[in-house]
Amino acid sequence: MSKEVTSRAADYSQWYNDLVIKGGLADYSAVRGCMVIKPYGFTLWEHMRDALDKMFKDTGHVNAYFPLFIPKSFLSKEAAHVEGFAKECAVVTHYRLKNDPDGKGVVVDPEAKLEEELIVRPTSETIIWSTYKDWIQSYRDLPLLINQWANVVRWEMRTRLFLRTAEFLWQEGHTAHATREEAVEEARKMLEVYATFAEEFMALPVIKGVKTASERFAGAEDTYCIESLMQDGKALQAGTSHFLGQNFAKAFDVKFLNKDNQQEYVWATSWGVSTRLVGALIMAHGDDEGLVLPPRIAPLQAVIIPIYKGPEQKDLIDAKAKEILEDLKSKGIRAKYDDNDNNRPGWKFAEYEMKGVPVRLVLGARDLENHKIEVARRDTREKETVNLDGISQYVDGLLIKIQFEMLQRARKFMEESITKVDTWGDFVKVLDEKGGFVSAHWDGTAETEEAIKEKTKATIRCIPLDNPQEDGVCIFSGKPSKERVLFARAY
Amino acid sequence: MSKEVTSRAADYSQWYNDLVIKGGLADYSAVRGCMVIKPYGFTLWEHMRDALDKMFKDTGHVNAYFPLFIPKSFLSKEAAHVEGFAKECAVVTHYRLKNDPDGKGVVVDPEAKLEEELIVRPTSETIIWSTYKDWIQSYRDLPLLINQWANVVRWEMRTRLFLRTAEFLWQEGHTAHATREEAVEEARKMLEVYATFAEEFMALPVIKGVKTASERFAGAEDTYCIESLMQDGKALQAGTSHFLGQNFAKAFDVKFLNKDNQQEYVWATSWGVSTRLVGALIMAHGDDEGLVLPPRIAPLQAVIIPIYKGPEQKDLIDAKAKEILEDLKSKGIRAKYDDNDNNRPGWKFAEYEMKGVPVRLVLGARDLENHKIEVARRDTREKETVNLDGISQYVDGLLIKIQFEMLQRARKFMEESITKVDTWGDFVKVLDEKGGFVSAHWDGTAETEEAIKEKTKATIRCIPLDNPQEDGVCIFSGKPSKERVLFARAY
Repeated sequence: MSKEVTSRAADYSQWYNDLVIKGGLADYSAVRGCMVIKPYGFTLWEHMRDALDKMFKDTGHVNAYFPLFIPKSFLSKEAAHVEGFAKECAVVTHYRLKNDPDGKGVVVDPEAKLEEELIVRPTSETIIWSTYKDWIQSYRDLPLLINQWANVVRWEMRTRLFLRTAEFLWQEGHTAHATREEAVEEARKMLEVYATFAEEFMALPVIKGVKTASERFAGAEDTYCIESLMQDGKALQAGTSHFLGQNFAKAFDVKFLNKDNQQEYVWATSWGVSTRLVGALIMAHGDDEGLVLPPRIAPLQAVIIPIYKGPEQKDLIDAKAKEILEDLKSKGIRAKYDDNDNNRPGWKFAEYEMKGVPVRLVLGARDLENHKIEVARRDTREKETVNLDGISQYVDGLLIKIQFEMLQRARKFMEESITKVDTWGDFVKVLDEKGGFVSAHWDGTAETEEAIKEKTKATIRCIPLDNPQEDGVCIFSGKPSKERVLFARAY
Repeated sequence: MSKEVTSRAADYSQWYNDLVIKGGLADYSAVRGCMVIKPYGFTLWEHMRDALDKMFKDTGHVNAYFPLFIPKSFLSKEAAHVEGFAKECAVVTHYRLKNDPDGKGVVVDPEAKLEEELIVRPTSETIIWSTYKDWIQSYRDLPLLINQWANVVRWEMRTRLFLRTAEFLWQEGHTAHATREEAVEEARKMLEVYATFAEEFMALPVIKGVKTASERFAGAEDTYCIESLMQDGKALQAGTSHFLGQNFAKAFDVKFLNKDNQQEYVWATSWGVSTRLVGALIMAHGDDEGLVLPPRIAPLQAVIIPIYKGPEQKDLIDAKAKEILEDLKSKGIRAKYDDNDNNRPGWKFAEYEMKGVPVRLVLGARDLENHKIEVARRDTREKETVNLDGISQYVDGLLIKIQFEMLQRARKFMEESITKVDTWGDFVKVLDEKGGFVSAHWDGTAETEEAIKEKTKATIRCIPLDNPQEDGVCIFSGKPSKERVLFARAY
């Protein structure tokens, strides 16, 4: 029953798990690597999903739904793609169980073997492009701007709640275009959407960049990404948007008649973010008391807690608290009055701090006499006493302020965590002692990238967009370099 | 390219497929039994889903998410449940592919065999109740009112788009209660929610009833249902709500400490509706010209089509049409102005009739001169010419009227399709010649029910709620009966 949280300093990884589980976001399940997203966590995800969905629709996209299963042969059609996903696929081989002839229970019916095995989708490029072949004939059918909200499965060996689970929820956009330029523009536009969402809704500052060839999505010509920074100094890839070139069009023979009346392969993008973002949210803002949620997506934005002695005080406080509750709700604030008698105020304070509720209002008998109420911010843990008149406007404004300041603080932290280094010694030292992003010259080869990764566990997170060009030498090989890239250890 | 629809009289089943495919709702996929829900169909489903989701939340439910996979041993824990689902399960047996040593492509890696096979959920009672065991200790943890929107898989041998697909989308509510009475009340309340949704949003009248023992959900003590009637006289089960008793609590050992400080098994319900409802919608309202969609859930509620000769007329009409469009949108009407020059007005008329758009507005040069516009209803195909002043109010009112009248017509059709019969001869005759629901006495035995089904393919759709008690004799066995039940052939 204890809701105590391991401190970040004592054990960062355990701290994270504590916040997920004791904060009521998710739970382990009976199925290896799969989690249960609990109602509180799912409501958070719904707010994130709804905000993103609106942004997708506002940029001209529509939702559709494609099959969960992918015929095995489809995966093989794009060489890099199958190479990237074959090793972590859940494979359906049979379609029936039967009673165990030797006892209780059921066994797989050997007579119900599929002719071709089905893969539970790890991502849907192949099934979608096999469908687009029927949908696209002419340039008039383009662009096709489709998104799907779905569950996908990647059989990860080492899983972490939200950050890396065998099954996760995500959205995957899959668009088809008549020209390379238009597809590149789409991939970059959706990266902007992700960056805006991360900053404005999650209060999560990100660096926009492009991946090196080794870190690209399997089957992409370019992978754009947003990279964020966690409090332990490790980076987390928060979303990716891929320019797929004509790779999948060629693999599935998807051509269109262009305006010059010639057959041409279609150009593609895909882009996705997942429930992994919840993990980023936790690690970007949480503290040793629990979750700290940004108001715009918090399931609950304000909670009112009464403090009273005896039924007379209770009645008075009850009446006023309900009035405040209605007032808050009428402003569109997601608010709750916790009048549960089974729990003491102190327990409630800890509980809502754990859950990261942005604003706590405490109403006691003396407050009521003075026509005041105590207002506490979750993020800074600052308290003040406020006049009851116009309390809902006050809370409304405070929520906006909290949202803004959370982003500011996270941005400041991120900016201070980008260190320029010019020598191998400094590179290793900064990684080990400070963490964060290390901005360094790299010779542009996969060999050097791999060698650095092996020695330090740091990867190139991205080459920032609009990266300044600057002559220098690779920290590892000493070869010439034209620009710095961002290294970090990452989730 | 032809958008012609097979008539209902010529081939009802082909007519249905034509509406699904040519209406742009869904498509067959490369995966046996799985469909692709196209953007137009998915938007329809989104409107249905959002309306239901709001009703669930308004009745105190919250959403969560449970794993896609169910360990095989879990299914066996409730005897009736496994009996009902074992024969149509997709089974995951491996978690990795590898390069085919004999050539191109990939094969299942025999070394990556799961210790215990995983079933792709056909429904989630077992995985959810294995989780509830950890969430429920005391009566204070109850009720637990949780819903999940998810994909499920049932390996059906004969599939039909929307009506019966291997994978489908649905919601499944799973609630836990301290008493039998409360659980029964919940099951009935959700049946009411479904009935209200079907009637108010889908314009689909339903009969609320309870299933006979043979037709119950595998693992339920009682299955409540809403039954609807299609235009070919066949019934379609549109939603079910199950009182599960303590069956799953016993199977997964979920007990709680009640108010008298005693351990007791938890009481359960589950309830669901699926993308099958889209099939019901098509068959309840469609006609030989295409889909007819109820305004409240139609992806597009009104379309404006211009008719002009030459650029001068075009400019004038264009300007006015855009003004009307903004006016409609400002009223919250989902409207579109189709000014695509590649298609002629006649083609557009047919296209939007096929797609079931409730209201069509046609603006020509003479209309514009007369400050009028032609308004056509999709459901009745009636046209009238209306003054342009206040056109958006007019359309707004018309949409409400269409919604209301669609329900009225469907209700009248259903009521006229319920026939009371008292002899076996009449029973067979009505089934063969008229179809619809046949209200007849039944002796209450599973044997008679089965014999009738074998002879006529008619099943007992339900015993209506608040069924009048009436002495009679079973049409089949001649044995005494206390009430009539509703028989029908069904989807």
